[in-house]
Amino acid sequence: MQFLSTYQQLLEVLFRSPNQGKAPQGLYAPIDYLLSLGGKRLRPVLVLMACEAFGEDPKKALNAAAAVEVFHNFTLMHDDIMDRADVRRGQQTVHQKWNLNTAILSGDAMLVQAYTYLNAYPSALFTALTQLLSKTALEVCEGQQYDVDFEAQSDVHISDYLEMIRLKTAVLVGCAMEMGALIGGASTAEAKLMYRFGEQLGIAFQLQDDYLDTFGDATTFGKRIGGDIVENKKTILVHLARQQGTVEQQEKLTQLLSTTPQDEERKIAAVSTLFKTTKADEATLAEVAHYTQHAFAVLDEVSLPPTHKNRFKDFGAWLMKRTK
Amino acid sequence: MQFLSTYQQLLEVLFRSPNQGKAPQGLYAPIDYLLSLGGKRLRPVLVLMACEAFGEDPKKALNAAAAVEVFHNFTLMHDDIMDRADVRRGQQTVHQKWNLNTAILSGDAMLVQAYTYLNAYPSALFTALTQLLSKTALEVCEGQQYDVDFEAQSDVHISDYLEMIRLKTAVLVGCAMEMGALIGGASTAEAKLMYRFGEQLGIAFQLQDDYLDTFGDATTFGKRIGGDIVENKKTILVHLARQQGTVEQQEKLTQLLSTTPQDEERKIAAVSTLFKTTKADEATLAEVAHYTQHAFAVLDEVSLPPTHKNRFKDFGAWLMKRTK
Repeated sequence: MQFLSTYQQLLEVLFRSPNQGKAPQGLYAPIDYLLSLGGKRLRPVLVLMACEAFGEDPKKALNAAAAVEVFHNFTLMHDDIMDRADVRRGQQTVHQKWNLNTAILSGDAMLVQAYTYLNAYPSALFTALTQLLSKTALEVCEGQQYDVDFEAQSDVHISDYLEMIRLKTAVLVGCAMEMGALIGGASTAEAKLMYRFGEQLGIAFQLQDDYLDTFGDATTFGKRIGGDIVENKKTILVHLARQQGTVEQQEKLTQLLSTTPQDEERKIAAVSTLFKTTKADEATLAEVAHYTQHAFAVLDEVSLPPTHKNRFKDFGAWLMKRTK
Repeated sequence: MQFLSTYQQLLEVLFRSPNQGKAPQGLYAPIDYLLSLGGKRLRPVLVLMACEAFGEDPKKALNAAAAVEVFHNFTLMHDDIMDRADVRRGQQTVHQKWNLNTAILSGDAMLVQAYTYLNAYPSALFTALTQLLSKTALEVCEGQQYDVDFEAQSDVHISDYLEMIRLKTAVLVGCAMEMGALIGGASTAEAKLMYRFGEQLGIAFQLQDDYLDTFGDATTFGKRIGGDIVENKKTILVHLARQQGTVEQQEKLTQLLSTTPQDEERKIAAVSTLFKTTKADEATLAEVAHYTQHAFAVLDEVSLPPTHKNRFKDFGAWLMKRTK
């Protein structure tokens, strides 16, 4: 996985104060602040990887990589308002460090900047990339809305949940892959396969995230273990526990996830135990493996040099073994 | 001005529930609600007018007109949150009728939709229109940020104020003109002149708006007369009153605009009187006339049939005589 840090180094220059010196700073400083908080930069790395896989210099894909990462960070800035989150990557969220209005307006500007990064490409490519970004962006908004809607609904089916995470998380991974492929010179059909590969990998990634939120290692995960349980979130673990549990276990789970007790650790322990006794934990890992395998099957349909195909598989395998 | 309602009728179909039947409705219903509240649709009318002036069927410009109007309404949805406004066009604002999160997320989706309306155009035109929209959108964000910044600053120069309204309001009028011209087949140079015409007209429009907020007719203006005074807004009237008033008048104005008294009507009356005694009212109308004349001078540089040039001048003259 040496190649990962090579790509990451290529990217870091992009996110080191890209708006320095621009006025008004009240608009631009919060953007640079959020971008400086880092993160794994997985989406932009995939843009570069996909471009190189099709035979072009990954540097040609840097602007599209920036578009995808800036778009992703725009969603974080606005989602943090909606989730009333105080902390992002161990630092204050923008609406906490500045205020609500700043987080709204700087977020809006970031969404526009995601588009402007694509201005660097010639017209035909610009058109394809921009229309893909718009399609993806609207789907991400739809996914976020479904996430909000589902919090208030008790009868959400597991297929609705999977569609929600496809929209909210996976389509942007697909978009990253397709953008890189298009810049790399892939045909429309190959680029669409790369999209589908990224989309399936993105679903696996989010399901893995659901798993780690409860069963991850606190020292490496970076977030509090059990956060989703405390917030009564209906993750894949809850869906599978309901599907596989006895009536008694189902009722106990529903009861536990409708309370906000003082003793959060006790609630986390009780719900975790239910996930284990219903084997929802194992079933979740099986789903992760299923979507990963499906992603690899799609990848096998693309005509790419074996070196690059294996890189993507190493990347996928690494994603699914991650502990953070 | 018969042509105005012809264009408006052409447009209304676009804004009658464009997202009907789309899911999730929690995302799309607030968009259709805001678009249904109407308004004069001046910006999209200008897109159609500019397209027709250069010899093309205005129907070809309908999608760009929709992009401009949907973008404008996106700014209204988010600005209403920032301004804590309860009412828009006599109806509840989106964050009041739904909630904060809805107004943020549906607003984000509107910004993306503004871009997707442009997908209808062939690649070269799509590229020009999209890049113009992005440039304009970022400037509008900058203008909004300056507006926020200036509220907390006591030493804002009149030229900074004019630059703020250029960014916040006028560039979108310029964008509307340029988009219509490009779709109509104008050369890049002519399209840029049309942009400049719209931009100067947009500044005149906003200055007129500042004037009407204090000196308009309550029955036709649609908003409460004196609203800006109540909110201590530093409009062009305040800038000119400070510039032209005696030291005593300046101090009285500063004192009045740093209070929020119970008796708002008395404050409105006192400030209005100061605007008159300092002749800031007349000076504002002179500025409106100045920018309008400048706009017309730019228009005269464009090679357009006299009929169409006169239409724009009628439109401009009508804008400046408006009472609402």
